[in-house]
Amino acid sequence: MKRIAVLTSGGDAPGMNAAIRAVLNQGMHHGLEVYGVYHGFQGLVEGDLRLLTVNDVHHQIKLGGTLLHSARYPEFKERKNQERAIEQLKKQKIDGLIVIGGDGSFQGALSLTKLGFPAIGIPGTIDNDIPGTEYTIGFDSAVTVALDAIDKISDTAASHERTFVIEVMGRHAGDIAIWAGVAAGADAIIIPEESFDMEQVAYTVRAGRRSGKDYSLIILAEGAMAVDEFVAEFKEHVPEQSVRGVALSHIQRGGAPTARDRVFATSMGAKAVDLLLEGQAGVYLGINEERVSIFDIVETLEKNEHKVREDLYKLNLELTDRDL
Amino acid sequence: MKRIAVLTSGGDAPGMNAAIRAVLNQGMHHGLEVYGVYHGFQGLVEGDLRLLTVNDVHHQIKLGGTLLHSARYPEFKERKNQERAIEQLKKQKIDGLIVIGGDGSFQGALSLTKLGFPAIGIPGTIDNDIPGTEYTIGFDSAVTVALDAIDKISDTAASHERTFVIEVMGRHAGDIAIWAGVAAGADAIIIPEESFDMEQVAYTVRAGRRSGKDYSLIILAEGAMAVDEFVAEFKEHVPEQSVRGVALSHIQRGGAPTARDRVFATSMGAKAVDLLLEGQAGVYLGINEERVSIFDIVETLEKNEHKVREDLYKLNLELTDRDL
Amino acid sequence: MKRIAVLTSGGDAPGMNAAIRAVLNQGMHHGLEVYGVYHGFQGLVEGDLRLLTVNDVHHQIKLGGTLLHSARYPEFKERKNQERAIEQLKKQKIDGLIVIGGDGSFQGALSLTKLGFPAIGIPGTIDNDIPGTEYTIGFDSAVTVALDAIDKISDTAASHERTFVIEVMGRHAGDIAIWAGVAAGADAIIIPEESFDMEQVAYTVRAGRRSGKDYSLIILAEGAMAVDEFVAEFKEHVPEQSVRGVALSHIQRGGAPTARDRVFATSMGAKAVDLLLEGQAGVYLGINEERVSIFDIVETLEKNEHKVREDLYKLNLELTDRDL
Amino acid sequence: MKRIAVLTSGGDAPGMNAAIRAVLNQGMHHGLEVYGVYHGFQGLVEGDLRLLTVNDVHHQIKLGGTLLHSARYPEFKERKNQERAIEQLKKQKIDGLIVIGGDGSFQGALSLTKLGFPAIGIPGTIDNDIPGTEYTIGFDSAVTVALDAIDKISDTAASHERTFVIEVMGRHAGDIAIWAGVAAGADAIIIPEESFDMEQVAYTVRAGRRSGKDYSLIILAEGAMAVDEFVAEFKEHVPEQSVRGVALSHIQRGGAPTARDRVFATSMGAKAVDLLLEGQAGVYLGINEERVSIFDIVETLEKNEHKVREDLYKLNLELTDRDL
Repeated sequence: MKRIAVLTSGGDAPGMNAAIRAVLNQGMHHGLEVYGVYHGFQGLVEGDLRLLTVNDVHHQIKLGGTLLHSARYPEFKERKNQERAIEQLKKQKIDGLIVIGGDGSFQGALSLTKLGFPAIGIPGTIDNDIPGTEYTIGFDSAVTVALDAIDKISDTAASHERTFVIEVMGRHAGDIAIWAGVAAGADAIIIPEESFDMEQVAYTVRAGRRSGKDYSLIILAEGAMAVDEFVAEFKEHVPEQSVRGVALSHIQRGGAPTARDRVFATSMGAKAVDLLLEGQAGVYLGINEERVSIFDIVETLEKNEHKVREDLYKLNLELTDRDL
Repeated sequence: MKRIAVLTSGGDAPGMNAAIRAVLNQGMHHGLEVYGVYHGFQGLVEGDLRLLTVNDVHHQIKLGGTLLHSARYPEFKERKNQERAIEQLKKQKIDGLIVIGGDGSFQGALSLTKLGFPAIGIPGTIDNDIPGTEYTIGFDSAVTVALDAIDKISDTAASHERTFVIEVMGRHAGDIAIWAGVAAGADAIIIPEESFDMEQVAYTVRAGRRSGKDYSLIILAEGAMAVDEFVAEFKEHVPEQSVRGVALSHIQRGGAPTARDRVFATSMGAKAVDLLLEGQAGVYLGINEERVSIFDIVETLEKNEHKVREDLYKLNLELTDRDL
Repeated sequence: MKRIAVLTSGGDAPGMNAAIRAVLNQGMHHGLEVYGVYHGFQGLVEGDLRLLTVNDVHHQIKLGGTLLHSARYPEFKERKNQERAIEQLKKQKIDGLIVIGGDGSFQGALSLTKLGFPAIGIPGTIDNDIPGTEYTIGFDSAVTVALDAIDKISDTAASHERTFVIEVMGRHAGDIAIWAGVAAGADAIIIPEESFDMEQVAYTVRAGRRSGKDYSLIILAEGAMAVDEFVAEFKEHVPEQSVRGVALSHIQRGGAPTARDRVFATSMGAKAVDLLLEGQAGVYLGINEERVSIFDIVETLEKNEHKVREDLYKLNLELTDRDL
Repeated sequence: MKRIAVLTSGGDAPGMNAAIRAVLNQGMHHGLEVYGVYHGFQGLVEGDLRLLTVNDVHHQIKLGGTLLHSARYPEFKERKNQERAIEQLKKQKIDGLIVIGGDGSFQGALSLTKLGFPAIGIPGTIDNDIPGTEYTIGFDSAVTVALDAIDKISDTAASHERTFVIEVMGRHAGDIAIWAGVAAGADAIIIPEESFDMEQVAYTVRAGRRSGKDYSLIILAEGAMAVDEFVAEFKEHVPEQSVRGVALSHIQRGGAPTARDRVFATSMGAKAVDLLLEGQAGVYLGINEERVSIFDIVETLEKNEHKVREDLYKLNLELTDRDL
């Protein structure tokens, strides 16, 4: 193996650049040339790739987004596109591919492997919703940005003794809501994985105020309910309160990646290169117990589901459990 | 004059705490006792005030929001409430009042002055929309937060080569949009003070892409149009592009005040105390040419309008003016 | 058990307030009264403690430092002071104590337990240097602040094509240096746990420049060498370069705690209350595999040593390994 | 005039990139080609310049440092180097030059103008020490970073009830110290422009503690005294206190430029292009009363001195003036 390539696919996530840089640096360590594929799988099919140099990546380790650009490209499910991708790679004498993205992107990596071209996945998504691994690149940064925004909003909440309902990202997963919610000292955390009772939430918010809090925070995962809908319904349960809703939206995807996101992105980027050289393929990496783990794409994605930290969710229920 | 009081009114703004602290410290410098009125004019009418100590304020200089809490209280227009307010102040032997808030709050200060109780206003609002002064407490912090959010969003915008329309605060004024927009290198800035042509905006965005930009930003003042409405209409003009809308919302009100907001809040807080001691009333303070200025409430609010920095608006038009 | 107390000891660390708040909230959940001891063990001996209310803690979850103040107090090793501490606790009918601090503080907790007063430790130190646990409260925040500072310095480094040697905290441990160093893409990381060769560092820095980097970063743990000394010696090995040294110093101890620090501080604070109620004592908590773990103070501190992430250290050597 | 060039010289400052981008964009608006000179005056002499494109600058508006790199180059005082510089410019058919830097850099611009090549200066230095203008690019960012660091340190200061002496940058000017000091609520601000009495400082610090503060801050401009020296001397005056010194050092030069720095850098960058086209030369720009001003290099630098905001310095003395 003399040449490998790397691409980013799906939604961008802070830390992807650190992974790309690690792929290049570890490749150089092993004497490989590393190509960057621009615009994800679409760029791969169209041959939009070129040799990466240190100059392309060394400043980017501290920047959000992805220097390779990214895109969704459902057409990659079609076999003819997969074959064209392999042609493009072979044309450049590239022998292995690293795909940074979500579980959809891993299916793309798998399809190449099945056609004989070795590919390995690295989990890059702020949603943390990939089975097997406890961590995905960008999650820590997204929680950090969400928490910073919630802290800011709590200044206004306190000044006006208001209740704020704050919608955070996460697609179908409640991970960002749980971590940001516990960290913010939220009165309630609403996630798609757990049912909730609006009257119980109202009780908890009221009990918090009664105990001396001058504001209340409800952190709502986007996968559970839209914030406007929640606020409209919730207001009926607390007619005495001033309630506002805010959707944090796209700020959660951007900004400088945290140390944790950069360190794990770097670890996985380097490991992916090592694995390709060892002849592995059809697998993806993850972080469990703070170390890099390896998962079979077929096995893991089929037989496992992503699980939120239920223990933290319950912890928050206990911490806010008090009599009205 | 032996005792004065201070209150915050209307929407909270970062830097209000620095002004409160300056009122206390400058009061101490002059040998005065300083009372804090909690919950704005409503608290004043209800007698919700108490002696401030250094301990109440010295950590707060670096925190957003207002330690005195704030509230809107339109009932203060009623004379009986104004009289009750003066009773409450006199009960505590307080001889002067400093009101930190928007121009509505200044009318409250004026009404007390007209009834013989000296009051002075300090402009505290993130919207920067008060006539006479070029600066209001919280504006610089709001622009800072907005810009930080826009920078974060631009990471995603670049990764996906998207156009983002970002709605910022400012009520009827375009100031936050102009400053954040110029600072972000926006393709277009839309403010209530200036008309715009959707097709022209589309042209500019396209010309920017043509010139080499991998993303586009449109900064939209909330007073001009709602972001969803704008995006829906704009999409028809750029059907080839991926366009997203984001409303930054309440994060812009919170967070640690900037140095500028703290320095000017401190300057005005101290000056307000000096003026009360000199026997002035019915005036409010502002910052022009980087120094504290004094404005007559009646004269200035009646005869002047707040003006945005039209020169900066035009500068942005020039900087983005290029051929498609 | 009806009443418990909590104190912070040793150097302050961001997240301590989140732990204190969790102790109070979890105590309230179990129907306990929670006292705060001010000024660490010295305050305990002197009876400087009082009932905590929600109002004391609910804003503080987002603030660095410790609302209970802290201090070093070596005199607590004396038995008479330990006995006086227990007297003070019994006077207030307090039956259990939670001590947030470093391993020295755990010895204080242990001495009380040996005298029959149940006490439990929670690791709070930015240095991450406590045996058994992989994580201590404040470490993630310290790495975050250090990395942010390093990123800032790299702007200047790149502008002037300079090499910066940046000294980070960590006492005798290299943890902050390793995490911040890998995250920053450092050319070299110098820690007390690993020997290094100045000429080899010079080679790596030169090879990095040769490969296209326009600046170089060396992250130096304070436990390994003082920055001025390092720079003086290093300059002799790279006479052609512009080299500067910076000690980040105390900024690393402060600032808003990260989500991770707040979540784990909250988890451990709540768990400590549960354990006291279960009758446990003489233990301390930690985080392994992202979950709360329990360690016997005697057993763990005697038989274990803190270990740095050697794997990450070696990863950085590989990533920067290239020919000159 | 068809082609102009831009360079950065002296120490880097956040916002320089915004100025470079504005020069390019305004140049494009006027139909000019804009060249970037790399590595300051040295690069100019050596012919290290090339055509700038939108792609070179459009991401950089939000980044610190200077994309053109910078360097000190005292040899530019020699006439032969100035002549060689003009040759290099003429070789590329460049007719005007914009120099972003400190007053030393303006002398370089002036020398070219005197030799018949039109050049214009833009003040870029974090020190704010240029006569005539009230503002220099990077100053607001440096104050922002310094204040953020001071806020962080105050967390530790409060936790341990300590006095911190914090050295900030500014070369011979006290501007950063004054703005950051007032904003931080410092007990004392020490600047080179004003003498001070160590015993008086000690009195103020003690009086602050007496009034209820749980920590003290002294902000020290580097031009006044080195922090270690100050601390050593100060400790003798407050033997009862725990006093620590910190030099903030190079972090103050880096990081994302503030909105203010970007807006004014943009304003001046665009204006410099307009002026070159109008045939002006030998002048530099500045900001007074929040608008761009023009200064003759010879006249202004010879006859004026930079002045600090003495009013703010005195304000801080008043605010901290209280009886022990």
